Amino acid sequence: MSNFLVIVCMPISGSVEASMNAKNANGVAFSDGRFVPVGEAKISVLDWGFSRSDVTYDVVHVRDGSFFRMDDHLARFERSMLGVRLTAPHSMAEIASIAERCVALSGLRDAYVAMICTRGSPRVFGSRRPQDCDNKLIVYAIPWIDVIPPDVQARGAHLHIASVPRIPPASINPAVKNYHWGDLTRGLFEAHDAGADTAVLLDRDGYVTEGPGFNVFIVRQGEVLTPDRGALEGITRRSVLELCEMLAIPARIAPLRKQDLLSADEMFCTTTAGGVMPVSRIDDHIMSGGKPGKLSSQLKSFYWEQHRAGWHQTPVNYSA
Amino acid sequence: MSNFLVIVCMPISGSVEASMNAKNANGVAFSDGRFVPVGEAKISVLDWGFSRSDVTYDVVHVRDGSFFRMDDHLARFERSMLGVRLTAPHSMAEIASIAERCVALSGLRDAYVAMICTRGSPRVFGSRRPQDCDNKLIVYAIPWIDVIPPDVQARGAHLHIASVPRIPPASINPAVKNYHWGDLTRGLFEAHDAGADTAVLLDRDGYVTEGPGFNVFIVRQGEVLTPDRGALEGITRRSVLELCEMLAIPARIAPLRKQDLLSADEMFCTTTAGGVMPVSRIDDHIMSGGKPGKLSSQLKSFYWEQHRAGWHQTPVNYSA
Ligand SMILES: Cc1ncc(COP(=O)(O)O)c(C=O)c1O
Ligand SMILES: Cc1ncc(COP(=O)(O)O)c(C=O)c1O
Repeated sequence: MSNFLVIVCMPISGSVEASMNAKNANGVAFSDGRFVPVGEAKISVLDWGFSRSDVTYDVVHVRDGSFFRMDDHLARFERSMLGVRLTAPHSMAEIASIAERCVALSGLRDAYVAMICTRGSPRVFGSRRPQDCDNKLIVYAIPWIDVIPPDVQARGAHLHIASVPRIPPASINPAVKNYHWGDLTRGLFEAHDAGADTAVLLDRDGYVTEGPGFNVFIVRQGEVLTPDRGALEGITRRSVLELCEMLAIPARIAPLRKQDLLSADEMFCTTTAGGVMPVSRIDDHIMSGGKPGKLSSQLKSFYWEQHRAGWHQTPVNYSA
Repeated sequence: MSNFLVIVCMPISGSVEASMNAKNANGVAFSDGRFVPVGEAKISVLDWGFSRSDVTYDVVHVRDGSFFRMDDHLARFERSMLGVRLTAPHSMAEIASIAERCVALSGLRDAYVAMICTRGSPRVFGSRRPQDCDNKLIVYAIPWIDVIPPDVQARGAHLHIASVPRIPPASINPAVKNYHWGDLTRGLFEAHDAGADTAVLLDRDGYVTEGPGFNVFIVRQGEVLTPDRGALEGITRRSVLELCEMLAIPARIAPLRKQDLLSADEMFCTTTAGGVMPVSRIDDHIMSGGKPGKLSSQLKSFYWEQHRAGWHQTPVNYSA
């Protein structure tokens, strides 16, 4: 947390209400200025973060007791807030400390930490102006979850190309991490109906974008490719591009179409909540004999090796 | 409430915790199976209704102690839930009773009643399948709010044609009432930056859709027109079309483009939270000498007259 370490005055109630206990092992949240077990972290039904999905967020992971690329997640969160004119009632340095405190109080060594800024509700009753709202910050740490379960990753996930097009960037900027997931949720339902594990969405012009909670990559003739549009600029995606450079594997960001997916040699998904997750099938196209591909598996291993080697790691201070 | 009146077993706590008092005058909610002051109605930050905007809702109004078109709102809410595969843990008849009870406990004679169904969170920790969630119902009654304040309605609202295109129906079905408001919120900010009161959004092909919380109408050569696409099938919109028929004013649903707005004789917006709301200006186009137009004003008056005459009214039983 080097760039963000500061002294923050934590409310006294934090340590009192959330002293280490079994409840906290399910996660700890900072909500309404207090640290509470995550099950007690709630937002008002009148908060526009809910009733207008007027909210942005970021998610960083903790593995083996260390944050991964915390500074990059904080920087993206700050850009996202700017992008939708939200102002957290805490500085970025304070947010970093709060996130660390949530992890420390939970005692979790492997966790997934969300930082969320909502519009709040108007100070003046009845106002419909976002400018009249006090924005709110919520942070929580919960136990590690893989977006694609580990056993599915081991055999390679089965993907479905959804018929529902991703919401266009002109309407909702996908680079501002958001909760406008209606299209992704419909894609998920379609995938499950088709017997697949998860979905990938195309845009209205047929270009590949992303899936519910992850970026996608294909491997074609030894080259690693990821879509150039319609998707969050994932931090795991960036990590994979950097790892490819370290391994001297050719990799680039490029326009990809449905046919590129259906003729790929390999495919994998990337997300903070799972890392590099191999795919073995997309619709009727079976890759690498129905198993995770060679390069995909190599990148997955290298991603975790680099974690263990201290790459972009910031140890959590559990006794803070 | 004729079609929906049934006996519902309310939790005893309801009457205890929400006996009529000053707090309740700000609104009463039904949340987690209990009736509470609306300020205490909260949802978990882990509810996908928040973290994926996986939720649908409806809003009905109460004016002078009577619901307006309650059956139509309940029917639309039921269709919306079906449309996104949500199942409320209460029957439609129970939801009607709960809504009435919220109003009765609040004592409000003029109110705005929301019924909301969220995905909830997975029964199995870590599941990413919407199918694994128990859906939740929240209902609340709050004091009447006009989407466009009464003084602005009186002079005629100033509208801005937003540059941000409405999320396309192929991605998010606008007929399923939803909280995917990122585009509408950006439109609102643009409008306020331009000194206007509110915004109207076009779709990607340049056709008029709707605004943040309302449908739009124009009057052209004595004919009343409302867009045929990209918008919620508003119940106030339907009311206006019916009122036009009653008054023998020609009215129809038709494709409308930006130029139709900029050359309209009159314009008005419609919503449950305000009724018929005249517009006197859109961008640089000033209508009826900068005042509410004749037909718009007539329809506004007739809308409220019909309320008083009992049209589609269901009196709230305040002593139930
Ligand atoms: C829609 C979407 N795309 C992509 C990603 C992957 O981004 P990151 O690698 O930064 O976690 C996420 C992460 O949750 C996501 O929600
Ligand atoms: C996006 C949107 N369009 C239109 C409307 C108007 O619909 P109704 O007349 O049913 O209230 C609303 C109502 O809140 C709305 O949110």
